[in-house]
Amino acid sequence: MPYNLLKGKKGIIFGALDENSIAWKTAERIHEEGGEFVLTNAPIAMRMGQINQLAEKTGSQIIPADATNLEDLQNLVEKSMEILGGKLDFVLHSIGMSVNVRKGRAYTDQKYDFTTKGWDVSAVSFHKVMQTLYQAEAMNDWGSIVALTYMAAQRTFPDYNDMADNKAYLESIARSFGYFFGKDKKVRVNTISQSPTPTTAGQGVKGFGGFISYADKMSPLGNATALDCANYTVSLFSDLTRKVTMQNLFHDGGFSNTGVSNEVIEKFSEE
Amino acid sequence: MPYNLLKGKKGIIFGALDENSIAWKTAERIHEEGGEFVLTNAPIAMRMGQINQLAEKTGSQIIPADATNLEDLQNLVEKSMEILGGKLDFVLHSIGMSVNVRKGRAYTDQKYDFTTKGWDVSAVSFHKVMQTLYQAEAMNDWGSIVALTYMAAQRTFPDYNDMADNKAYLESIARSFGYFFGKDKKVRVNTISQSPTPTTAGQGVKGFGGFISYADKMSPLGNATALDCANYTVSLFSDLTRKVTMQNLFHDGGFSNTGVSNEVIEKFSEE
Amino acid sequence: MPYNLLKGKKGIIFGALDENSIAWKTAERIHEEGGEFVLTNAPIAMRMGQINQLAEKTGSQIIPADATNLEDLQNLVEKSMEILGGKLDFVLHSIGMSVNVRKGRAYTDQKYDFTTKGWDVSAVSFHKVMQTLYQAEAMNDWGSIVALTYMAAQRTFPDYNDMADNKAYLESIARSFGYFFGKDKKVRVNTISQSPTPTTAGQGVKGFGGFISYADKMSPLGNATALDCANYTVSLFSDLTRKVTMQNLFHDGGFSNTGVSNEVIEKFSEE
Amino acid sequence: MPYNLLKGKKGIIFGALDENSIAWKTAERIHEEGGEFVLTNAPIAMRMGQINQLAEKTGSQIIPADATNLEDLQNLVEKSMEILGGKLDFVLHSIGMSVNVRKGRAYTDQKYDFTTKGWDVSAVSFHKVMQTLYQAEAMNDWGSIVALTYMAAQRTFPDYNDMADNKAYLESIARSFGYFFGKDKKVRVNTISQSPTPTTAGQGVKGFGGFISYADKMSPLGNATALDCANYTVSLFSDLTRKVTMQNLFHDGGFSNTGVSNEVIEKFSEE
Repeated sequence: MPYNLLKGKKGIIFGALDENSIAWKTAERIHEEGGEFVLTNAPIAMRMGQINQLAEKTGSQIIPADATNLEDLQNLVEKSMEILGGKLDFVLHSIGMSVNVRKGRAYTDQKYDFTTKGWDVSAVSFHKVMQTLYQAEAMNDWGSIVALTYMAAQRTFPDYNDMADNKAYLESIARSFGYFFGKDKKVRVNTISQSPTPTTAGQGVKGFGGFISYADKMSPLGNATALDCANYTVSLFSDLTRKVTMQNLFHDGGFSNTGVSNEVIEKFSEE
Repeated sequence: MPYNLLKGKKGIIFGALDENSIAWKTAERIHEEGGEFVLTNAPIAMRMGQINQLAEKTGSQIIPADATNLEDLQNLVEKSMEILGGKLDFVLHSIGMSVNVRKGRAYTDQKYDFTTKGWDVSAVSFHKVMQTLYQAEAMNDWGSIVALTYMAAQRTFPDYNDMADNKAYLESIARSFGYFFGKDKKVRVNTISQSPTPTTAGQGVKGFGGFISYADKMSPLGNATALDCANYTVSLFSDLTRKVTMQNLFHDGGFSNTGVSNEVIEKFSEE
Repeated sequence: MPYNLLKGKKGIIFGALDENSIAWKTAERIHEEGGEFVLTNAPIAMRMGQINQLAEKTGSQIIPADATNLEDLQNLVEKSMEILGGKLDFVLHSIGMSVNVRKGRAYTDQKYDFTTKGWDVSAVSFHKVMQTLYQAEAMNDWGSIVALTYMAAQRTFPDYNDMADNKAYLESIARSFGYFFGKDKKVRVNTISQSPTPTTAGQGVKGFGGFISYADKMSPLGNATALDCANYTVSLFSDLTRKVTMQNLFHDGGFSNTGVSNEVIEKFSEE
Repeated sequence: MPYNLLKGKKGIIFGALDENSIAWKTAERIHEEGGEFVLTNAPIAMRMGQINQLAEKTGSQIIPADATNLEDLQNLVEKSMEILGGKLDFVLHSIGMSVNVRKGRAYTDQKYDFTTKGWDVSAVSFHKVMQTLYQAEAMNDWGSIVALTYMAAQRTFPDYNDMADNKAYLESIARSFGYFFGKDKKVRVNTISQSPTPTTAGQGVKGFGGFISYADKMSPLGNATALDCANYTVSLFSDLTRKVTMQNLFHDGGFSNTGVSNEVIEKFSEE
C-alpha cells in the first residue's frame, strides 16, 4: 500500500470525529490511495473533535452540516462539487447516536422523542444524504456509497438498545435506495457491518469491554479494527467492486458466522 | 377445525378494518378456537370499517385506540384486562400505512414528515404496544405476540416504498423486544412475513395486480390468503409453539426461497 | 392438549431410537393428536433402541428400513400405505450421523469415505425418502414433510464437524424438493432447526455439556426441549400451516437471533 | 487498472477452461495485478480447453490435477510451492459439474451415483483442496481462499438441479473450514455468489437464455460479468479485505436483494 486505487475519485466523508473514528482512518486511507474529498460533520461534533488536523493532513476542506437538515445537505453537496471540481464518486456515511442510550433509558422504557431523534440522526440521515445526492445528480456513473452498520440489526445485543432498530432501518434504506440508485444512476449502495470497534462513540456503550472481548474470542480472525475497516471501504469505493450493491457486508473476522468458539465453550464448561 | 386450540386464552387484536383484513379473519379464527379478545383500531379506521359486525359475531368488545398514543394504549391494555378478567395471552399487531405512498411521493422524493408519520404508525406503534404491555405486567407467562410484516424488509419491491424500511424496523423491534420479553416475562415475539394479500389496504399499492400475479406464479403453493394467515397465527398463539421467538416467519407458499419459477423463465424466453 | 389436530392423518416417522429421541416424543404427541403412523429406523438402530415399546404405546407398526437404501424405502412407503389404508399426510425425517465424529477425526483431517457415508445417511437419505414418496404418488394434497436440522448449517460450531455441511445440504434439499413437491403435489417441505437437545445421539458430541449450557444462557426462553420440538412439529403437520414451505424454521428459544446475552458478557467482563 | 494490488503474492487457480471462464479472466487480472500462480484443471477439462494459451500469456505453469484426488492435490500443492518459491497467498476454486444435469435427470428423479459424483467434484473437492493446503502448511498468514458459488444455494432455481445442494454444501465448507483456517493459520475463506454467467459450462443449463435475461432485468446494475467477478476476486485476494471471512458474498448487480423489478411486474400486468 498504497496502490493509487482511488486516483481521480472525489467524494464526501461524514462522521470523522477524532483519530479513533473509522471515518478518520478511512479518510487517511482514501487520501493515500489518491482520492480527494470534503469532510463533514455536525457542528457540535466538530467542536468536540480534531477534524481540522485531519483536513490539514489530507489537504481537504471541511463543510459543517447537520445530516438531518436538508438545506445543510444541499449546501454540502453543492459546495463539495464546486470544491472538488465535478461530480462525486464515493460517499461514506458513518453517523449514529441513540439519545435513549445517552440518557440511560432501557430498551423497555424508551422515551419516544429520544427514539425519534436517534432514528433521524442514525438512519434517516442516510436517506436524506442519498435523496439529496440523487436529486442533485451529484454522483458519477459507477459511484459507490457506503454506510457503516452493526450486526445488532440482525441479532439482539441487549445493551445496543434502539440503535439495533436504527441500524435495521439504515440497512433497509441501503437496499431500497440502492435499487433506484442502481437502476437510474448506475451507483451502488452498500453497508459494512463492522466488528465492535473502540471508537470514542462505541466506548460509551454499557458493558462494552466485556463485549469486545467476547467478540474477539468469537471471531476466528479477531475483531476487525478501524484501519481494517478503512481498507475494506477503499475496496468498495474502487472499481474492483462495481457490481456489488444492496448488500450488507459483514467485516468482522468471521464473528457473524461463528456459532460458538472453543474459548467460549470452555468458559461454560468450567461451571 | 376448530380444535379448541386457544380455549381460555385472552388477547387484543389490532387492525381489523373489514372482512378483507387479515386481522378480521384472524379474529374469526381465534373465536372459533375458543380465544377471547378485545378488538381495537384507530378511531378513523373504525369509522371506515365494519368492525362492529366483527365484534358482534365474535362476542367481543371494541376499544378505540391510536396505536401511536401511549395514553390510548395504556387505557386499552388496562380496560382489556378488566373486560377479559385477567392478563393476556396473545396480541396481534396488524397496522401499517405510508403517507408517502398515499400522497404519491416516490421513494427518491420523500417528504420526511410523511416518512416519520408512517414510521410511527407502522413500526414504532409495535414498540409502544409492547412497552405498554411490558410495563403493565399485562402478559401471562408463555404469552405470544405477533406482528404482520412483508418481505420488502429483506428485498426491494420498488412500489412498496418506505414501507420496506418501516417493516425492517418493525422486524428489528420484534427481535429486540423479544429478547427482553423472553428473558423477563417468558413471552415470545415473532413476525409473520405474509404473501401479498388483496386487503383493502394492500390494494392501494401501485402495480399491485401485476405483482400479486407474479408472486403467485413464483410461489410453489401459490400465495397465502388472509385465512391461511389467520390459521398460521392461531398456531403461533397456541401452546404448540412456545419456544419460537424473535423469528421472522415467511408465510408465502414458498416465494421467499424460490429464485425463479418455470412460468417466469418462460415469460423471458419468449423474447 | 390434546386437540385432535391430526385426526385422520397418516404418516411415517423416521428416527425414534429411545425416549430421549425427538422422534420418539413426536410420535407420542402425534398419537395423542389423533394421527396414525408407521415407525421406521435402520435395522442396527432398532436393535439398540426400545422402539417396540413406542410401537405398542402408540398402536403402531414398525418397518425397518435403511434410509439410504432405495429398495428399503420403496418397501417402506408401499407397506405403510397398505397398513395405514391410504396415502400419507406427514413424514418426519430425524436421522443424522457423522462417521468422522464417531471416529474422532477433526474437521481438518477428514477421511472422505467417512464423509461420504455421513452425508448419505444424514442428508441424501432425505432426498431418497422424498424421491420415493414423490414417484410413488404417496402423499396426499396438503401433506407436510419435516426434517430436523441444526444451526451449524449457518454458523460454525467447531465440534459439530462435518455434520454442519450435511445439515446445509439437508436444508437445501428441503428447498429444492419443496419447490417440486409444492408445484406438482401441493405438499410442503420444511426443516426445524432445533436447540441442542440432550438426545442419546447428541450427547456423543464433544464439549456438549458446556455448549448446551452456553446455548441455554444465550436463549431468552431457554433451550427448546424434545417435547417442545414434538409440539412444534405437530403444528407443522396440522392444517394450520398449509402455506409454510421451503423454510428453515428456528426452534430455539431465540438463540438464533441473539447476538449476546448479559450472562455471556458478564463471563467476559470478569477477566 | 492495474494497481499492483497482488505484487509478490503467489497462488493456485483451479478451473480455467477457456476464455469464457471466470477463472480464466481472474487469472488474467491477477497477472495484471502482479500476482503469480500455477494453473490447474482436471486432465479431461484440459484436453477440451485452451489453458496453454492462458499459461503462456500469464507466464504460468500448468499442473493437471483431479480435484477429487488427494494424491493429485498433494502433488499440486507441493509442486506449486516449488515453482513459485514459497508458500501461497491465494487460491481460487472454480469447479462445478452435475452428472444428473448432464444426463438429463430431473431433480425428482436423481440417480444417486450421479449425485455423489457431482457432489464430490463440485463441493467436496473444495474441502479436499483446503485440507491439503492446511495439512501441508502451504498458506501464508493472511492468505485468502475463494470459491465460486451460486444463489441456488439459498433459493430454488428449478433447472439448477442438484447443483443447488452442492453449492449449499460448498458454502458450508467455506464457513466450517474458514473457522479453523482463521483460528489456526490466519487465512480467510469466502465464497462469491456470482450472477448467472454465460460460461461454456453455464450455457449447458436448460432454459439458461430466458433465465439470464430475467436475472439481468431483476438486477439494478445488470448481471455481473466474468470480468467483473475477476475484479472482485482480486479485491478479496488483496490486503484490503483481511478481516472478511466465512462469508458468502453476493456479486450480482443487486439481484439477491431485489424482490421484483418494474420490468418484471410489467410482464405480469399485461395479462
